[in-house]
Amino acid sequence: MKIGFIGTGVMGTGIINNLLKNNYDVTVYNRTKAHAQPVLDNGAKWADNPAALTKKVDVLFTMVGFPKDVEDIYFGENGIMNAARAGQYIIDMTTSKPSLAQKIGQLGDEKGLHILDAPVSGGDIGAKKGTLTVMIGGHKEDLDHLQDLFMTFASKLNYFGSYGSGQHAKMANQIMIAGTMTGMTEMLVYAKAANLDLEQVCQTLQSGAAENFSLGSYGPRILKGDYTPGFFAKHFLKDLRIALEEANKMQLDLPATKEAKHLYEVLVDQKKLGNDGTQALIKLWWK
Amino acid sequence: MKIGFIGTGVMGTGIINNLLKNNYDVTVYNRTKAHAQPVLDNGAKWADNPAALTKKVDVLFTMVGFPKDVEDIYFGENGIMNAARAGQYIIDMTTSKPSLAQKIGQLGDEKGLHILDAPVSGGDIGAKKGTLTVMIGGHKEDLDHLQDLFMTFASKLNYFGSYGSGQHAKMANQIMIAGTMTGMTEMLVYAKAANLDLEQVCQTLQSGAAENFSLGSYGPRILKGDYTPGFFAKHFLKDLRIALEEANKMQLDLPATKEAKHLYEVLVDQKKLGNDGTQALIKLWWK
Repeated sequence: MKIGFIGTGVMGTGIINNLLKNNYDVTVYNRTKAHAQPVLDNGAKWADNPAALTKKVDVLFTMVGFPKDVEDIYFGENGIMNAARAGQYIIDMTTSKPSLAQKIGQLGDEKGLHILDAPVSGGDIGAKKGTLTVMIGGHKEDLDHLQDLFMTFASKLNYFGSYGSGQHAKMANQIMIAGTMTGMTEMLVYAKAANLDLEQVCQTLQSGAAENFSLGSYGPRILKGDYTPGFFAKHFLKDLRIALEEANKMQLDLPATKEAKHLYEVLVDQKKLGNDGTQALIKLWWK
Repeated sequence: MKIGFIGTGVMGTGIINNLLKNNYDVTVYNRTKAHAQPVLDNGAKWADNPAALTKKVDVLFTMVGFPKDVEDIYFGENGIMNAARAGQYIIDMTTSKPSLAQKIGQLGDEKGLHILDAPVSGGDIGAKKGTLTVMIGGHKEDLDHLQDLFMTFASKLNYFGSYGSGQHAKMANQIMIAGTMTGMTEMLVYAKAANLDLEQVCQTLQSGAAENFSLGSYGPRILKGDYTPGFFAKHFLKDLRIALEEANKMQLDLPATKEAKHLYEVLVDQKKLGNDGTQALIKLWWK
């Protein structure tokens, strides 16, 4: 079974390395070839564009930045969909629009492809360790067929239903994280102003009803002044925009998520800090 | 050592039962005597007012609803401070204003009392199990003296510094929880509208980067339609008001916490659901 992978960012690199470790034959494509060098050094092969890659493989994963990038690699010049042949498995792991996942899925049905939307949670550490949580939409039997392959980089596979429902589950995930990130940030801002020992505050809160993954994972990084991206602020803002666009379509008002989106807009669009990690939100208060 | 306890609510009852189990001699007072019946049945004695109780005991705990109630029992008619004698230990575990804790502490210093502010985290379950997290301000040696007593109902004692700093740490805790509660609520609202299996969504999110105590503890209660208070919505609103008042004094703008306060105001003040648990926030969307 030949595997293709488009997108060698933080997450993609971790996943590809796990596939290589499990002796899969992996060919990759990335817009900026230099960013693929680490996985090429580990034994991955290179293809010159999405179409060329699609023609070489049985199973193709994609994990790029924005819905616009997904549109480009699936439907653009030298795109996946024109090159794909019946029977191929094509899985988008980008966190992207549920409506786009539905569009790809329906076109895939017409062409006899096996399509899944499969965004993940668990961050850079999960990708590296192979312990990602995957949220999946599409035909259940297609997931069953790829179970072993997924488990080389995931510890949990969660099937949610038809095309786009993996993306919807991921949106729910990001809405939850919007709460933990804004809560953690404002908590630290308050605690610092009140002259509390911040390390002790983090430890104390983690042992009670305020406990959460963001605090445990990003609290210590903030206290060390480490804003390197486990997850890019610009990508999180993209996710919140998709979530609120979808909520809007469903006539839902989600004011706390809106406020989180607004804060990340200030960070990314005004302060131009989108290439920092999500924990850089605290820079809106701390200099 | 004779123990006094004022306030036999959900939390107080759990703590008193743990003191009784450890064979402490406990006398209690509560504004509504009927609410003290469960601990009286378990062997606690009764005093007719805060002053009468203060005169009988060596160590006095207070855990009431609002800062106004703390003012009343400490400074009102038949209040604690007029009845207290040098050498007594008096600990307020109500989540209350840092400035009020400072006032009680300074007056206590003048009178030769040992004062601590010691709000807790861990909810009704923590109080019952004796696994509360305590956040403490005051003189460190007074905490050291009471270590064993505290450990009958707590699993962690966290000393933060001078009078009021226990309350400040608790405010930080509540700001964090404002994020997890609004995030969880809006996440469930979104997931339900997207027709996802909500139980599976909760399980999936708890295994990844969205994981948090509120989701683990209150998610299942919401799915069962259980809005009984582990923690009263009206008390959480009180906490958020104190936190934002303190933030304001420190010239901090905390927009996500403000939005959370606004949502709980709608729940408590407009919808009159303050006697529900904090998880009832979802009733702003679900009928």
